[in-house]
Amino acid sequence: MCVLGLGLIGGSLMRALHDAGHETFGYNRSAATVDAATADGYDASSDLVATLRRVADTDAVIVLATPVTTIETLVSSIVEHAPDVLVTDVISVKQEVERVITRLHPAGRYVGGHPMAGTSHSGWSATDATLFDGAMWAVTTTDETPADDWLAVASLALMVGSRVVPVAPDAHDRAVAAISHLPHLTAAATASVGGGESGLALRLAAGSFRDGTRVAGTAPALQRAMIEANGIAVLNVLSETIDRLIAARDDLRDRGTVEVLVDDGHRARSAYEQLHSGAAETITGVRVGNAGWQQELRRQAHQGRVWVG
Amino acid sequence: MCVLGLGLIGGSLMRALHDAGHETFGYNRSAATVDAATADGYDASSDLVATLRRVADTDAVIVLATPVTTIETLVSSIVEHAPDVLVTDVISVKQEVERVITRLHPAGRYVGGHPMAGTSHSGWSATDATLFDGAMWAVTTTDETPADDWLAVASLALMVGSRVVPVAPDAHDRAVAAISHLPHLTAAATASVGGGESGLALRLAAGSFRDGTRVAGTAPALQRAMIEANGIAVLNVLSETIDRLIAARDDLRDRGTVEVLVDDGHRARSAYEQLHSGAAETITGVRVGNAGWQQELRRQAHQGRVWVG
Repeated sequence: MCVLGLGLIGGSLMRALHDAGHETFGYNRSAATVDAATADGYDASSDLVATLRRVADTDAVIVLATPVTTIETLVSSIVEHAPDVLVTDVISVKQEVERVITRLHPAGRYVGGHPMAGTSHSGWSATDATLFDGAMWAVTTTDETPADDWLAVASLALMVGSRVVPVAPDAHDRAVAAISHLPHLTAAATASVGGGESGLALRLAAGSFRDGTRVAGTAPALQRAMIEANGIAVLNVLSETIDRLIAARDDLRDRGTVEVLVDDGHRARSAYEQLHSGAAETITGVRVGNAGWQQELRRQAHQGRVWVG
Repeated sequence: MCVLGLGLIGGSLMRALHDAGHETFGYNRSAATVDAATADGYDASSDLVATLRRVADTDAVIVLATPVTTIETLVSSIVEHAPDVLVTDVISVKQEVERVITRLHPAGRYVGGHPMAGTSHSGWSATDATLFDGAMWAVTTTDETPADDWLAVASLALMVGSRVVPVAPDAHDRAVAAISHLPHLTAAATASVGGGESGLALRLAAGSFRDGTRVAGTAPALQRAMIEANGIAVLNVLSETIDRLIAARDDLRDRGTVEVLVDDGHRARSAYEQLHSGAAETITGVRVGNAGWQQELRRQAHQGRVWVG
């Protein structure tokens, strides 16, 4: 395996794969990051061409692990130096990555991925080999996905302790707009309003503010890269959020109650807790490669099930 | 000390005071709660009149620890059975409590309190003697507050490991609207939008959704009691939140960017983290009881400082 980009996600993945006994090497543009990774005992280089030649020689799987705004250069180099290898990624939008690859590398082998894991920290110093343990890992699944390539990417997720959620790229982007990108925007709004008060308010801030604004602490460039690359889906869920908050404000002003919003929120949170209590239900009765396997995986994933091999 | 109401906050306070060696007894309307507290070794009763007579006999300090919507009955009984004792509370709004007490018990001794601590669980089974350890505890401070009563309530907070934030009732309510009540509403909206998606979305939900919606899991009746009792302050911060989200939506739609919101949120979150890193600055140079002590405490608290005795 070869990881291009050794920030929080890519660096943690290189650690996890290496520590699990899989030959893994990585590339990062910054020599400081490469030095840090090397000092920690990992196989890293800041020479992209040499890295990609090594990929071609060893038929490694490439994992793109840089912000979506920076992948064009990487994909162009892959076309030049390692055009035949399987490419996946760990980027938080799937349609935009697919668009870039289709445009620059139309004959390339690509299956998208997105591990649902992270912290509000970034960079090699924040990497952690256990980051993906028990996480959900979305693996894109279109009607044209070849079975072997899909299995190779899905097993990469399993190797680091994740469970696989098979998903179409557009369904992925709509889902993460709601459960990942929107929470960054509501956290930012909540933090901004609290921060606009006196030092008194921030001093009194406790658990609800601490947890509700945590992801606002993520590096702004990383937040913008994912949210802005998923603009249409984010616009939809953001508009729905605004509508719900306006309805709550009107209820509170006109009738003195926030019952509807609080009850809806409590019901949704309970459903989330219920779904995540205990082990996830697994996808059953599908043999990857048989007719219609992609649709059947996606159908079961839509019910909240996961693929575990 | 006598705690009226043995839910998460009141019950935890009875535990903490008792475990720290202070004679403490409690009252709860529900016999089941009283039985559970008694079985755990605490001194609890479901007889309000007997409890208040004991308060009057021992000159105990009363702590009101029920939702603000239910305190009228308690205050009326206090007027009847223990009119001379000092009353405080641990309720998350201060002006509404003060209004009820001024109306029903105008000659009573009252200094308001609000520990900034909690979890999304409720009831005696969720109580925890360490809940207040290191927490901020707002203690109301008006120009008429008698020094002895204020010190008695402030020391109660110190006894259980909290730090005291002296604050005027209206400033308290504005601050908690921003840093506590608003986060409940944005959490509810975020949870509702995520919950409206398929099982796929909730399955993919990870850290940002988990933390950003945590407080939506609090019992709806408790959330509504605090938010609706602080309606005007909540309306202000909710409107500001809506305005910020609308501006972000327009930016994203028209210019493809969420830069302003994400940057503002990151700045505010950083200010919060900075303020809460390390020990809080303490209020200095004030002798409680000297001329103007109340204003000076409030002035320094507005800069984020705390009173530690």
